Amino acid sequence: MNKNTKVNAAILIIGNEILSGRTQDTNTSTLATWLNSNGVKVKEVRVVPDEEKIIVETLNLLRKTYNYVFTTGGIGPTHDDITAQSVSKAFNVKYEIHKEAFKILETYYKEGEFNEGRQKMVWMPKDAELILNPTSGAPGFNIDNVFCLPGVPSILKSMLGGLKNKIVGGEPILSHTINLRTVESEIASSLTKVQKQNKDVEIGSYPFFQAGKLGVSIVIRSEDQKKINLCNSQILEFVNEKKIEVVER
Amino acid sequence: MNKNTKVNAAILIIGNEILSGRTQDTNTSTLATWLNSNGVKVKEVRVVPDEEKIIVETLNLLRKTYNYVFTTGGIGPTHDDITAQSVSKAFNVKYEIHKEAFKILETYYKEGEFNEGRQKMVWMPKDAELILNPTSGAPGFNIDNVFCLPGVPSILKSMLGGLKNKIVGGEPILSHTINLRTVESEIASSLTKVQKQNKDVEIGSYPFFQAGKLGVSIVIRSEDQKKINLCNSQILEFVNEKKIEVVER
Repeated sequence: MNKNTKVNAAILIIGNEILSGRTQDTNTSTLATWLNSNGVKVKEVRVVPDEEKIIVETLNLLRKTYNYVFTTGGIGPTHDDITAQSVSKAFNVKYEIHKEAFKILETYYKEGEFNEGRQKMVWMPKDAELILNPTSGAPGFNIDNVFCLPGVPSILKSMLGGLKNKIVGGEPILSHTINLRTVESEIASSLTKVQKQNKDVEIGSYPFFQAGKLGVSIVIRSEDQKKINLCNSQILEFVNEKKIEVVER
Repeated sequence: MNKNTKVNAAILIIGNEILSGRTQDTNTSTLATWLNSNGVKVKEVRVVPDEEKIIVETLNLLRKTYNYVFTTGGIGPTHDDITAQSVSKAFNVKYEIHKEAFKILETYYKEGEFNEGRQKMVWMPKDAELILNPTSGAPGFNIDNVFCLPGVPSILKSMLGGLKNKIVGGEPILSHTINLRTVESEIASSLTKVQKQNKDVEIGSYPFFQAGKLGVSIVIRSEDQKKINLCNSQILEFVNEKKIEVVER
């Protein structure tokens, strides 16, 4: 893939516990930040329940729409972990024991501890490649452009290193943030002008509260540092004119 | 709507800052928990960028699929806040000044402070109803089954009270959690049996780490307390047999 090609991805969060509100998803932010730094832009996130039909349909749509799809959750040993079998159905390939994964877990666990529940974790779509898990043994896997990761945030984080060589990103997406002691409405029209003059740069405006004071973070994002610099100077120009204070966060 | 009808919803998170990983979404968990307690089950969450075409298409799909749609983000005063105009397009109604919202903000701000930026926040789809904002003045709105809320978590939370009378839920979704000092693989096959015997109850299994120890939370969810109780006793039966400790979290 050419380094200049824009590379995009979707994240598919699988799990009733996110939809019920019981568990706060943090994997989206972890994955998106990491993907950005590798030149992959996340264009869509979906959270779906532990229901095979929905997972299969959603995955088949996303994998055809985006360069990469990253799923989180549903690859553990219990009955509600149905990601691997759903991915097999989506690709219409056999759901079978992955020999290499079997060997890894056989070695990982003490004798007699590689029980029925744990053996479920080595069932994967035929010809899946493993994503190694330095934290708790059981690997994730990828097939074609779909990468299946666990839901537990600390385990997911530890597996990103093993993922790096498997994806090819475009130019990294660079960003620059300007924090201002102001409110959005004070800068809205000036900022709109800058955005109109720089249509291919993404300019976001986000209010914040810090130590009892209001502020606004302006985030400028582009693959091109020069374009970021140009926006930055145009923004600082009206900031100075309006005598708005630039602050640290 | 009959109290026994199952009522469902989708959440549509609008914002590049979530997709870039810069901001950690917490509104899904807040909204889903609150909706559950009001008898509304969240079936899907989508995160989309600040792009009108995508917002319009996604909203039109979701509002026809689910009883309710809750959007968060994109209703502030800056150029990247395009939710209200996108919702207007989705419903094919005029995007215009909402007179009541105008009056509210005219009163809320000191004389001379209700500037151009802030006036953008009173533009809404024609005939939208307001969702009052006790924190920062600018109201959200609803039109038909679509409810548009802000992205700032503290403001969103403060608006839920004003939302309560606008939605009609089904039976509240009840849940019961059993925390065990074990690992998932130890209980996987027994738990599968309980799930198979209680197909209409949602049983989830979630590993946790606490004070350096591993554990598993089993969450039983249903609208029917009796069904929850039955599952609970079936689970405690195998837990006792296996001599697994029940713990507090």
